[in-house]
Amino acid sequence: MFEEGARLRAERGAENIFDFTIGNPSTEPPASLQRELLKLAQEPVPGMHRYMSNAGYTETRQAVAEHISKGTTQQIEAGHVIMTCGAGGGLNVVLKTILNPGEEVIILTPYFVEYMFYIDNHGGTAETVATDPETFQLNVAAIEAAIGPNTRAIIINSPNNPTGVIYPAETLQALGEMLTRKEQELGRTLFVISDEPYARLAYEGQSVPCVFSHIKNSIIVTSHSKDLALPGERIGYLAANPSMDGVEQFIEGAIFCNRVLGFVNAPALMQRLVTNLQEESVDIDAYQEKRDLLYQHLTGLGFKMVKPQGGFYFFPESPMEDDVAFAQLAQKHNILVVPGRGFGAPGYFRIAYCVEPEMIQRSLPAWERLAQEVGLV
Amino acid sequence: MFEEGARLRAERGAENIFDFTIGNPSTEPPASLQRELLKLAQEPVPGMHRYMSNAGYTETRQAVAEHISKGTTQQIEAGHVIMTCGAGGGLNVVLKTILNPGEEVIILTPYFVEYMFYIDNHGGTAETVATDPETFQLNVAAIEAAIGPNTRAIIINSPNNPTGVIYPAETLQALGEMLTRKEQELGRTLFVISDEPYARLAYEGQSVPCVFSHIKNSIIVTSHSKDLALPGERIGYLAANPSMDGVEQFIEGAIFCNRVLGFVNAPALMQRLVTNLQEESVDIDAYQEKRDLLYQHLTGLGFKMVKPQGGFYFFPESPMEDDVAFAQLAQKHNILVVPGRGFGAPGYFRIAYCVEPEMIQRSLPAWERLAQEVGLV
Repeated sequence: MFEEGARLRAERGAENIFDFTIGNPSTEPPASLQRELLKLAQEPVPGMHRYMSNAGYTETRQAVAEHISKGTTQQIEAGHVIMTCGAGGGLNVVLKTILNPGEEVIILTPYFVEYMFYIDNHGGTAETVATDPETFQLNVAAIEAAIGPNTRAIIINSPNNPTGVIYPAETLQALGEMLTRKEQELGRTLFVISDEPYARLAYEGQSVPCVFSHIKNSIIVTSHSKDLALPGERIGYLAANPSMDGVEQFIEGAIFCNRVLGFVNAPALMQRLVTNLQEESVDIDAYQEKRDLLYQHLTGLGFKMVKPQGGFYFFPESPMEDDVAFAQLAQKHNILVVPGRGFGAPGYFRIAYCVEPEMIQRSLPAWERLAQEVGLV
Repeated sequence: MFEEGARLRAERGAENIFDFTIGNPSTEPPASLQRELLKLAQEPVPGMHRYMSNAGYTETRQAVAEHISKGTTQQIEAGHVIMTCGAGGGLNVVLKTILNPGEEVIILTPYFVEYMFYIDNHGGTAETVATDPETFQLNVAAIEAAIGPNTRAIIINSPNNPTGVIYPAETLQALGEMLTRKEQELGRTLFVISDEPYARLAYEGQSVPCVFSHIKNSIIVTSHSKDLALPGERIGYLAANPSMDGVEQFIEGAIFCNRVLGFVNAPALMQRLVTNLQEESVDIDAYQEKRDLLYQHLTGLGFKMVKPQGGFYFFPESPMEDDVAFAQLAQKHNILVVPGRGFGAPGYFRIAYCVEPEMIQRSLPAWERLAQEVGLV
């Protein structure tokens, strides 16, 4: 998609292309990150580019642990945290740690397509379960029905990519209770892997409930790609619920997997930079403004969608039955979007609105022409 | 090993522990890297922390391609280079790209132990072939004898970890000719993966011959961990020989694997920092001085070893038959080394001399006491 956008910009002029395909924040990191970088550049700490323990710097892990502890009933220690090469790296480390070949991982439709590859990397099989088609909220009964003797884990993602929904505390609690029941029934541990790079990007003052308060065998995997706008820097972490069965063994295994999968660790310089920024984030209000502007315009034109509570994606219904054909038609109007079938949900399309507000403004007439062409207005 | 060293330093005092276990350069990156970092910190480039194309920044790939082209008869383009999360990431990307489940990869004893895990990660099987026990040089006939219908690749590493030997051009040529013959015989491609993070660390003005000039189906994998002293920063690359059969298909596959393995890419900031430093390296003379000092002292005490031509490791014979027992005995004298069996070579041990010269100086009497205790002097 990166290449396709670049080709069209070269062909039709960058200012004429409205690229809503990639979750690559156009915003810059908070000023505090720039200050930390300048400080380290001016007064480099000896050895600051060297290897560290395979789990990462203790002070970074400590800072992360304190941050997570604030949002949950659990007491997280540095020893529950491992710094990883982004959330992608973290997810692979977790899957390598917990999966035996042939075991199943439940993912929820619409899903982030990389989950399929990550599960396959470690000999697992992805089982898809649909979320509620009206709300994109979890269907706990459907998840329960999908759990079998080979199920090892469920990946959830809140705020969600691509739908923008947040799973409320009651849902996580219901999921946790169901899993405890199924674990007893099946005599095996079922993990919830909570992929939450958008956790600090929640609108209208909401906070995203922490999975640790509701689900015992749970793992958080996240990165600072979105909250500190550092997607190219591969800086993330995983954290294990201290209440997890055999939590020490899990952490030991995950440190080993971090190393042997070849990630080894998160970049040293970035670990230092984010240590003091655990309570910071990019300007959420700016994202909310973009959401409101585009949501109002698009629903006004007749596009149907769930209003996102966090993150920076819309997942509207495709006005044409064939979402790939719709994305191609949109391209004629210089609008680039991703067909829903890439997320296991044909009949929808994804808009990433982590773009310049000016681009959103400039795109509004194009959206109108597109809506006209498909007969919405 | 990181943790064991830390424990002993805490117990016996940091200044009393002579830790020769880890290839974690004590040297700082070249001053030019610090200048590039300061420049970026003072005048940040908009969007410099964002995602880029999955293969990395074009200008970084271009700089790498120009650097490699200087040392070989092949003309390398940016399109033959992919930026990776260190050499560990690069090796995993290559193995995922070329291996089918059950295929074999030949590694040479003594080998870097992570190769075993990397091959296993992608469903492959490691086949070990011994190097010449006197010189640690390649035994092309033994490699030929080990090649069968399931062989897919051979990993070589020059300058070598743990032995410090460099494979001369004639050996690479002989290896290349043998492989071409075997490829015709077997009707399949056999890859040479050249893992060369120590390529700029060659002593006495030697340069390490480029595998691309001698072996058609070859891939370079490396990082700036050692040559620019950035081991914690996960910055490396892979490059494919333009003469390779189906080179475009290989590169396309490797870009995909870089993404789906979860590495996604090398850190954005580090890619920028190394772009203009492709001809730079840490002070090689300083490494050579360390090598000479320790080599003279240890051989004077009766330790037997091949004199390293590059890198920063010695791989001496263990004066006790049991190399693990020897490493334990060394620890009694506050000397930390790695037993050879960790490299598939019992009866040897590894010394990493990428440490402060002062530590080497301080360790000399301890080595003498150790030599006395094992009856060498």
